[in-house]
Amino acid sequence: MDKTRLTRILENLQRGDLSVDDAAERLTNFVNEDLSFANIDHHRSLRKGFPEVIFGEGKTSEQIIGIIEKMMPQEDVILATRVDQEKAQQILAAIPQCNYEADARMIICAPEPPKPTGHGTVLVISAGTSDIPVAREALLTAWYMRNNVQAVFDVGVAGIHRLLSHREAMEKATVIIVVAGMEGALPSVVAGMVKAPVIAVPTSVGYGVSFGGTTALCGMLSSCSSNVAVVNIDNGFGAGYMASAINHIPLPAS
Amino acid sequence: MDKTRLTRILENLQRGDLSVDDAAERLTNFVNEDLSFANIDHHRSLRKGFPEVIFGEGKTSEQIIGIIEKMMPQEDVILATRVDQEKAQQILAAIPQCNYEADARMIICAPEPPKPTGHGTVLVISAGTSDIPVAREALLTAWYMRNNVQAVFDVGVAGIHRLLSHREAMEKATVIIVVAGMEGALPSVVAGMVKAPVIAVPTSVGYGVSFGGTTALCGMLSSCSSNVAVVNIDNGFGAGYMASAINHIPLPAS
Amino acid sequence: MDKTRLTRILENLQRGDLSVDDAAERLTNFVNEDLSFANIDHHRSLRKGFPEVIFGEGKTSEQIIGIIEKMMPQEDVILATRVDQEKAQQILAAIPQCNYEADARMIICAPEPPKPTGHGTVLVISAGTSDIPVAREALLTAWYMRNNVQAVFDVGVAGIHRLLSHREAMEKATVIIVVAGMEGALPSVVAGMVKAPVIAVPTSVGYGVSFGGTTALCGMLSSCSSNVAVVNIDNGFGAGYMASAINHIPLPAS
Amino acid sequence: MDKTRLTRILENLQRGDLSVDDAAERLTNFVNEDLSFANIDHHRSLRKGFPEVIFGEGKTSEQIIGIIEKMMPQEDVILATRVDQEKAQQILAAIPQCNYEADARMIICAPEPPKPTGHGTVLVISAGTSDIPVAREALLTAWYMRNNVQAVFDVGVAGIHRLLSHREAMEKATVIIVVAGMEGALPSVVAGMVKAPVIAVPTSVGYGVSFGGTTALCGMLSSCSSNVAVVNIDNGFGAGYMASAINHIPLPAS
Amino acid sequence: MDKTRLTRILENLQRGDLSVDDAAERLTNFVNEDLSFANIDHHRSLRKGFPEVIFGEGKTSEQIIGIIEKMMPQEDVILATRVDQEKAQQILAAIPQCNYEADARMIICAPEPPKPTGHGTVLVISAGTSDIPVAREALLTAWYMRNNVQAVFDVGVAGIHRLLSHREAMEKATVIIVVAGMEGALPSVVAGMVKAPVIAVPTSVGYGVSFGGTTALCGMLSSCSSNVAVVNIDNGFGAGYMASAINHIPLPAS
Amino acid sequence: MDKTRLTRILENLQRGDLSVDDAAERLTNFVNEDLSFANIDHHRSLRKGFPEVIFGEGKTSEQIIGIIEKMMPQEDVILATRVDQEKAQQILAAIPQCNYEADARMIICAPEPPKPTGHGTVLVISAGTSDIPVAREALLTAWYMRNNVQAVFDVGVAGIHRLLSHREAMEKATVIIVVAGMEGALPSVVAGMVKAPVIAVPTSVGYGVSFGGTTALCGMLSSCSSNVAVVNIDNGFGAGYMASAINHIPLPAS
Amino acid sequence: MDKTRLTRILENLQRGDLSVDDAAERLTNFVNEDLSFANIDHHRSLRKGFPEVIFGEGKTSEQIIGIIEKMMPQEDVILATRVDQEKAQQILAAIPQCNYEADARMIICAPEPPKPTGHGTVLVISAGTSDIPVAREALLTAWYMRNNVQAVFDVGVAGIHRLLSHREAMEKATVIIVVAGMEGALPSVVAGMVKAPVIAVPTSVGYGVSFGGTTALCGMLSSCSSNVAVVNIDNGFGAGYMASAINHIPLPAS
Amino acid sequence: MDKTRLTRILENLQRGDLSVDDAAERLTNFVNEDLSFANIDHHRSLRKGFPEVIFGEGKTSEQIIGIIEKMMPQEDVILATRVDQEKAQQILAAIPQCNYEADARMIICAPEPPKPTGHGTVLVISAGTSDIPVAREALLTAWYMRNNVQAVFDVGVAGIHRLLSHREAMEKATVIIVVAGMEGALPSVVAGMVKAPVIAVPTSVGYGVSFGGTTALCGMLSSCSSNVAVVNIDNGFGAGYMASAINHIPLPAS
Repeated sequence: MDKTRLTRILENLQRGDLSVDDAAERLTNFVNEDLSFANIDHHRSLRKGFPEVIFGEGKTSEQIIGIIEKMMPQEDVILATRVDQEKAQQILAAIPQCNYEADARMIICAPEPPKPTGHGTVLVISAGTSDIPVAREALLTAWYMRNNVQAVFDVGVAGIHRLLSHREAMEKATVIIVVAGMEGALPSVVAGMVKAPVIAVPTSVGYGVSFGGTTALCGMLSSCSSNVAVVNIDNGFGAGYMASAINHIPLPAS
Repeated sequence: MDKTRLTRILENLQRGDLSVDDAAERLTNFVNEDLSFANIDHHRSLRKGFPEVIFGEGKTSEQIIGIIEKMMPQEDVILATRVDQEKAQQILAAIPQCNYEADARMIICAPEPPKPTGHGTVLVISAGTSDIPVAREALLTAWYMRNNVQAVFDVGVAGIHRLLSHREAMEKATVIIVVAGMEGALPSVVAGMVKAPVIAVPTSVGYGVSFGGTTALCGMLSSCSSNVAVVNIDNGFGAGYMASAINHIPLPAS
Repeated sequence: MDKTRLTRILENLQRGDLSVDDAAERLTNFVNEDLSFANIDHHRSLRKGFPEVIFGEGKTSEQIIGIIEKMMPQEDVILATRVDQEKAQQILAAIPQCNYEADARMIICAPEPPKPTGHGTVLVISAGTSDIPVAREALLTAWYMRNNVQAVFDVGVAGIHRLLSHREAMEKATVIIVVAGMEGALPSVVAGMVKAPVIAVPTSVGYGVSFGGTTALCGMLSSCSSNVAVVNIDNGFGAGYMASAINHIPLPAS
Repeated sequence: MDKTRLTRILENLQRGDLSVDDAAERLTNFVNEDLSFANIDHHRSLRKGFPEVIFGEGKTSEQIIGIIEKMMPQEDVILATRVDQEKAQQILAAIPQCNYEADARMIICAPEPPKPTGHGTVLVISAGTSDIPVAREALLTAWYMRNNVQAVFDVGVAGIHRLLSHREAMEKATVIIVVAGMEGALPSVVAGMVKAPVIAVPTSVGYGVSFGGTTALCGMLSSCSSNVAVVNIDNGFGAGYMASAINHIPLPAS
Repeated sequence: MDKTRLTRILENLQRGDLSVDDAAERLTNFVNEDLSFANIDHHRSLRKGFPEVIFGEGKTSEQIIGIIEKMMPQEDVILATRVDQEKAQQILAAIPQCNYEADARMIICAPEPPKPTGHGTVLVISAGTSDIPVAREALLTAWYMRNNVQAVFDVGVAGIHRLLSHREAMEKATVIIVVAGMEGALPSVVAGMVKAPVIAVPTSVGYGVSFGGTTALCGMLSSCSSNVAVVNIDNGFGAGYMASAINHIPLPAS
Repeated sequence: MDKTRLTRILENLQRGDLSVDDAAERLTNFVNEDLSFANIDHHRSLRKGFPEVIFGEGKTSEQIIGIIEKMMPQEDVILATRVDQEKAQQILAAIPQCNYEADARMIICAPEPPKPTGHGTVLVISAGTSDIPVAREALLTAWYMRNNVQAVFDVGVAGIHRLLSHREAMEKATVIIVVAGMEGALPSVVAGMVKAPVIAVPTSVGYGVSFGGTTALCGMLSSCSSNVAVVNIDNGFGAGYMASAINHIPLPAS
Repeated sequence: MDKTRLTRILENLQRGDLSVDDAAERLTNFVNEDLSFANIDHHRSLRKGFPEVIFGEGKTSEQIIGIIEKMMPQEDVILATRVDQEKAQQILAAIPQCNYEADARMIICAPEPPKPTGHGTVLVISAGTSDIPVAREALLTAWYMRNNVQAVFDVGVAGIHRLLSHREAMEKATVIIVVAGMEGALPSVVAGMVKAPVIAVPTSVGYGVSFGGTTALCGMLSSCSSNVAVVNIDNGFGAGYMASAINHIPLPAS
Repeated sequence: MDKTRLTRILENLQRGDLSVDDAAERLTNFVNEDLSFANIDHHRSLRKGFPEVIFGEGKTSEQIIGIIEKMMPQEDVILATRVDQEKAQQILAAIPQCNYEADARMIICAPEPPKPTGHGTVLVISAGTSDIPVAREALLTAWYMRNNVQAVFDVGVAGIHRLLSHREAMEKATVIIVVAGMEGALPSVVAGMVKAPVIAVPTSVGYGVSFGGTTALCGMLSSCSSNVAVVNIDNGFGAGYMASAINHIPLPAS
């Protein structure tokens, strides 16, 4: 608890500059604020330009429109993920300032392009064509959370030479997101080549024993490379968010 | 059914060279032989030098000794798999002509080294040090089933350059066995580099979500390379046997 | 790295037949080629008449048409798997030279029938009527990858005598693909009768504890016959591809 | 409720042959008996010579001895299943009239051999050597529950001809128990050959994807033959008990 | 092999009543017949009035109509299971002699009601209203396979008194089929009350941890009553077929 | 936040009865207390006689002794669960005031028997002999948490009449704990007979598809009776704790 | 069995006030009533105002209408759960006295609002917006089962301060229902703050490794707080019913 | 490829400063270096002070001693994880310069304490006492990889106030590692309070439905907080390594 601020209120009361009732009210607010410090911090972080995100799956277009309209006056960037074509058209009809990124299935409402504030670059690598929607969700999330981003798509482990030709981009990246389905081997290979932290995103691409992405997920968690951590299946948004958190770690004042 | 042989028996009967009883007996044998053609064929294949194999797990050393002693007069090569150190010592004490390959956990009784008869070379690649027992089981099985064999051990996907330095061996192999645990990504990478058929062997190496080899198994079955087929977890023997079958496919007379 | 070719470039430079820039460019190409040897090899294999394959599931008919049109000038054979009736009609309307194999759910674009180059014959055996689509996918894949093929359909283990009547075909085959759902017992029985390598394909046919093919898959991997290896559930294409790889193993020059 | 018996009690009361208290007591007994008819019936069935069975796993030898000693005065046959060698020695030391069937891991206390009362013969077929303990448990259970029994061991699906040579025994059996591990295919093959009901017993024999017998279990439940029903993994006792129930179905008086 | 018949053929040849060619042909037929004894037996069993059954799921109405039309001249009873309302209407429009049992989802083509030949009565008990389709499938299968049948529906374990009121029917039945979803406890309770064999059928009724019937299945296999065996989830047909096999076990001539 | 108390502090400061520093300290304590109200409340509940519990599994006897010795001066009742025979002897040697309940595997340190404070009686019902350790753990937990308890052991669903004879105890209980392994059917049957809340405890008793208690757990969660809620496998302690919470629900002042 | 009542009947018979036939009939009724005491008790409980509940999933609107119409003359409250919008419109068209709670997917037919009879208040807490349907089902069930209810929605663990601001409601509740999907952590946190019993309801909200609610379910069962018991996934009705059973536990007469 | 360096070699050759053979050798080295850039980079990173790590599980103490002795001349820090007490004693006897951290099960050979080079502090939070070994492994790994570290142990979600009292440490950390077993809820709660990236480590602590850590793992992956990524069960080393990678992300030169 902030000692200075508490003492000031009490001194004001002692001096008669504040009635007991006013002091009680201020202290109550103070305590609540204290209690919910995470919350305040959270709002502040939003004020710093981090997007508020709407999970579109299982919400009607009316519900999404309502939430966006309520947020617009206060937010610079509004993202809605997992919005299909049909809902998107209804949303854009109602709120024409927004855009729809069809391949990433995202609605984005941002009057201006984001100004990157992260330390370096977030590189997004994906394995197959079918992994692109998840990879694009990760990329756009990181971008609108104010990170420089770069994409290397369609470099699977079955043609390892294609991956090797992108080593420069890999060496320069601050954080790497690797998106892959099927056997989910790509993050191991990439992480074996770099020192940067790698966020692995399994996708539900595949059939039979792919088990909706579980095989890729477990493969990534069993990776023999150690600079890898994993997010939920198809969770491109989470990977972008985590990469942004890494790319914005606070530095001690020098 | 072999027409010629049938006709011959019947003609012999007709000519009086054979009594009805003798003909009946020959035909009965003939039919039984026919019924069990697979069996006869199987025995023949053994006579061609293919090893008879004893699955040692769950058998006592007494039982294994008994089986080996019964087989020795008729077989050139006898293999027993999954035999631990303790049982092996008891077996070797009883049958000193046999050898124990400790790392592959195999007992081998072969008076002479095998003479390779397969078309080309079986290459065995393994990912980590802990995969070596399974890889050695595959290698020795293929070798004693009369195949030229070659080994490239300890080349995981987390250091892809080590694998790349063995490309010549990979290009020359007729069949490749790839043994890997954890995420099981190595077969995909290898199969993406060659035209040869690849037999993938998942191992139970790993912990947590490795789930005793199931993750590696499913990863291999989900492989994005198509010249891959998979055997059971830790089944080095099966991989060696299958590779030998491939390396011995019959060629049409030219 | 090919020593001769390297020396020749350097000697040309030394002799003044090549400028530094030209030598640098040739060496760069050389190195890239080297790096991506797998790739080059892959392209060469395609030039030898192996089909390029499009996985149709999850692609629109427009996307498939686009890929086929881009490939047609360079490829002898183009296969697209997992294409349903509706997409197929749209594709054939756009590219009338292609054919649709409805039971195998494949689009095939091949101006001429393939000329077999494999060593022997690929035999495809399937258990039940519902397994036929997967079996046909395997058969057509092997056929268009230039293998002689033969089919024995509808011979389940519950009527073992039907299988026994095909023993001649089984004995003559170079590779056998066995397609089965439900308990997946057929590959064990077939592999027990022959010396040839057997590729087992579990299908998702069944209900309840068939668990979408997982029971058949695990049954096949647990097979008590050793000349069996397994591909993913419903992966008829992979089985055909693997069988072709086996039927085309390189033979040492005699 | 038995009308006659009720009326008789009430008439006795009406006639004064019974006091209210006596009638109340008789009726209370009557009702309790009624409530617990299953129980009474159960005891009756035991009196008919069916063995009382002790599940030995997780019980100490002292506990088993105690139960046997309490049962001995009343029972013709006492079976204890899943008793290991060490416990068995302690039990036999205490109760020398009992025998230990080591391969079936059963303690049997029966002064005289059972006199079969079932309609026909229970045939027990098992696939591999390691399945024999479970198969023997089934066999001995059926035998001591008063059934003629016959055994055909070691006939796996990988050598189908061995099974075919036992067709006569299969055709004559009233009920068939089939015990198999690994892929669990044998019950399907057997049931496809006979009209008799088949009880399938999966065993925990195998490794890797055998998953402790689950693969065999699911394979048996997915059987393409319909005259098959399944019991729990390694439940030889249950199979013998169920087979006995089938072999003792009541026949209507002719 | 039938010795008498073999000797007769050979004697005819010896006597000159048969040419070598005719003898060879007869013996070949004889052997084939022998090989496929199961098959012949199977056909004979069909001639005895057992229904041929068509698994309707995954077949078009055209395919089902085709199969029925081909079977009609030879079969007394034709059953098709898992036929939905829409397909049924098309089938009945094409073959008006057939009937549709909507609740059991079965098409039945039988000019006359079946004449029971089984030893006793098959009792079908089901737990909840939603289990009735599976229970009815079992009931009709048993009925058309020539068994007397009786039904007790809607007696779940949560109201045990309802079950208790049917004890007479339970005590009189030769075989009992118990159909239950959710926790699948009913077969244990029923089997604890009777000596007859109980066939348990888990259904896919339920949600959440019912896991599509797997919980009921495993519960039934773990039953603490021993006169229980289990068939696949929702496999009413298999239960009826197995119950009929039990109710028709051959009796030794007295 | 407690308004009265806040105002009182502030008024004391205003009146000069309290310095700013003292007021600041009191408010800080107040806020911390407020923040951690759950904690304070928790301690209070302990002071009311609820036992502090030590989970013994994975702790050495030294660790358990240490914790008990630290707790003894402050606590009336100390329970340690999952303590095996060997550890228990060491603990009792060190702290002779404690007792060991061998069947429940619990160490209990309570100078005086508990004085029940709950509204009614907690009834514990268990299915089989092997479920008794878990049932006893539940019983002793509830007892030492100051509830009247009653036990009905060994009443499985396979002999439903035994359960029926305890209906009076069931009707009188305030809360019922039902402990069962294998198919886990007992809670459904019990809950169908009573209005009281039923806490179901699955046990890991069983083999094969019991899957270490998972089948019983899922069966209980799928129960067709609605007055049932479930705790983790073998969690007798949790069931006793939850039952006590129910038996101590606060009643509004009348 | 009620001694007094039995004696009275028998005395009436003895006195001649009752014929044997009348006494027999009365005793038969008496016994049946006795046998089915659970049933009678159940009916009585309904007469006390507990709702009869129709599980709407898998029933047609016609079936639901039929059941409601049959129940209306006798019941104060009729609830139907899991009724979608379309069915609801058809039901309301047929029975206009009923209401549809769209968010809880319930049909409610109650002429008058329920009069609470429970001891205290049932508090329903839910984590996310998507959990509200299940939470509302729990709330309305508890309300119509005559409990005072209170709702705190949308307080997830990722913003713990929001939960903390509701501590007063939590401290006052007699029973707390906590509804949560995804990681299912909320019940642990809530139960750690209160002494009241907590009923946890996992929901199927989430994707990937949420596995349709299984992860939330297992998380709740593994809770480190002990005053938690769990119901099936999405089973809001069961939670409301169980909470009501707890809130109505019988109190001993003081 | 580095253009300048290539050109320089070629110009030297052109100028005659280099023979063809020397140029060929240099170019070969150059290309190899190029091919294996990951490798070189990897070695360099090691030279920067990152520890080489030995996975001790499944290795004998002899093997571990051998590896350490080989590494000692070249490495500043050597870590061996998952080394049990017994092996550790043998290792320390052989190499007395090493230390054993018993609670983290790690052998550490470092002549001097590490000098932190990371940007900020790695905070390790753990839930229960049993999670401490994994948490300590994470802590020591991060520390020896040159990060400032801080530990907050034993703060579970069931007592949320204990966690709240550490908010300052949480707010100041650059990366947070959260270690938890059972329901795995702690990372969600922590991540909801901070902006820093959170690495979640599930542990295998728990029983029943904890399923060896799988429930905690899936709960963490399903987290409703987005700044969370997850490593394998019990993988404290991986978490420390990943946290170090994050704490060492390269900063662009300003």
